[in-house]
Amino acid sequence: MTLVPTRADIEAAAARIAPHVRRTPLWVLDSAALGIAGPSFEVWLKLEQTQVSGSFKARGMFNRLLANTIPATGVIAASGGNAGIATATAARALGVPAEIFVPTVSSPAKRERLAGLGARVVVTGAVYAEALAACEQRQRETGALMTHAYDQIEVVAGAGTLAREIERECGVPDVVLVSVGGGGLLGGIAAWFAGRCRVVALEPELAPTLQRALAAGEPVHVDVGGIAADSLGAGRVGAIAWQVVQNHRVEPVLLPDAEIRAAQRALWQDFKLAVEPAAALPLAALRSGAVTARPGQRVCLVVCGANVDPATLA
Amino acid sequence: MTLVPTRADIEAAAARIAPHVRRTPLWVLDSAALGIAGPSFEVWLKLEQTQVSGSFKARGMFNRLLANTIPATGVIAASGGNAGIATATAARALGVPAEIFVPTVSSPAKRERLAGLGARVVVTGAVYAEALAACEQRQRETGALMTHAYDQIEVVAGAGTLAREIERECGVPDVVLVSVGGGGLLGGIAAWFAGRCRVVALEPELAPTLQRALAAGEPVHVDVGGIAADSLGAGRVGAIAWQVVQNHRVEPVLLPDAEIRAAQRALWQDFKLAVEPAAALPLAALRSGAVTARPGQRVCLVVCGANVDPATLA
Repeated sequence: MTLVPTRADIEAAAARIAPHVRRTPLWVLDSAALGIAGPSFEVWLKLEQTQVSGSFKARGMFNRLLANTIPATGVIAASGGNAGIATATAARALGVPAEIFVPTVSSPAKRERLAGLGARVVVTGAVYAEALAACEQRQRETGALMTHAYDQIEVVAGAGTLAREIERECGVPDVVLVSVGGGGLLGGIAAWFAGRCRVVALEPELAPTLQRALAAGEPVHVDVGGIAADSLGAGRVGAIAWQVVQNHRVEPVLLPDAEIRAAQRALWQDFKLAVEPAAALPLAALRSGAVTARPGQRVCLVVCGANVDPATLA
Repeated sequence: MTLVPTRADIEAAAARIAPHVRRTPLWVLDSAALGIAGPSFEVWLKLEQTQVSGSFKARGMFNRLLANTIPATGVIAASGGNAGIATATAARALGVPAEIFVPTVSSPAKRERLAGLGARVVVTGAVYAEALAACEQRQRETGALMTHAYDQIEVVAGAGTLAREIERECGVPDVVLVSVGGGGLLGGIAAWFAGRCRVVALEPELAPTLQRALAAGEPVHVDVGGIAADSLGAGRVGAIAWQVVQNHRVEPVLLPDAEIRAAQRALWQDFKLAVEPAAALPLAALRSGAVTARPGQRVCLVVCGANVDPATLA
């Protein structure tokens, strides 16, 4: 059986990463203020896009690096997205070298961002899988500590510290809404709350890795695309997240890209929160009626990242 | 003597506007996390850019409209900036018509925003003063309720509710840093804290209306320009703010545009907070060393607005 993070793992992660990450704001609003129809309930916006590195991924990557002895060759990862940025950010903060592998299709802007964080950026392979293969080959040569975007126990435990932080600030919500790519964030949050609240797992219709896994009875490969593919584009739900979902029931919900985009726009226009599409799924779920809450309930929306070109928000 | 808002005025304003405005997040960070050199102190970021209408101005405009009987001809204002947007927002929420006068130099984007809020937009006059004159002429004809960007007692009392909200959430800070244009925000905050903490009044070097007033011993006209002229571009400090400054000492500080711009960029790049230049003065003051705090002190930075084209943040 795949090991999943325990409460003690998440407590240990929180202690480890505390000097390096931020306690992000938790903003309490009424559902009506967010344009959500029906009887009023309480919405908690966990503004995790203001986290170090611009997403929740910093929690997992700092925990991964701090929980292991890092060789002189440093850390290594294959990712042009939030996981790569968080790995490079953690490596810089801890004073160790980082090598980040990205495919040739990755944007120059992302490569510059990684290089600006002090990482050695290796551009190789036509697609992500090829960059990953080159990264793994290099890791075998150098012995560097590899980080995985969502399927390492330290990474999932780090994500779990977000749920612990919510509980310490406001208590256990009735419902928590979380976006799923590979499932690292979902796994950490569901492991922490451990059945003490509803956990709704949100995916774009065009990237349904958890839905397909639930239908198949095991994680399966899915060709993903659409608006949020950049950050929710894992082709398969992780083994750790899958095991957490066996232990604690989660409610899977799919959302169309148009609803995700509309929620992202509303977060900027009405709340001046600049977020990436993946971070808009929780609001999209409530505004579209795909997820409902009972009057007076406390519903937590995890706003997970802001690695977005602000010019696209206008 | 010019009337200034009393504590009771601000309490009454808070009760009046509560159904219409948001309690905005107060984010507590360590000074080191914000890149501020020297011994550590506590920084409270009051994220008022997430307020209804995108700035603190909604507090004053809702209070102005709710504290008065609004004639059938509605409300009227001359402003292409935050005050106009807040007036139109409040009018729409309260179901009354709004006429907003803007000069021909105003951007089409601003006019569209006002029209999108349901306001009748009147484009007239080459400069702001001419639009204002036309607005006043129209007001005499229609009897509509006029709102002023910063020099009406209800508007300043509304701004004061921001200080009340800070105190209710975290207590009285040791220092509060606030940007000054016409001084409405400064007046409200200094009136609420009433000498119970240091109040630092920040202006761009190119828009020094308070500095010049203090030098002259009375409000005087100043030709303003520079990066924050759009929202801190009042040509003279208001009579109400001036009277508050006579009653309660404030510390005036000028900041160069380059420091303001650097702080605005840092708020986006490092914290994913998209704000207008005026909202970056408090952080600029601390990062540049223009304002210092003692170890362990609690320093509140008012992040006042986000009416910014996000494309300019990249």
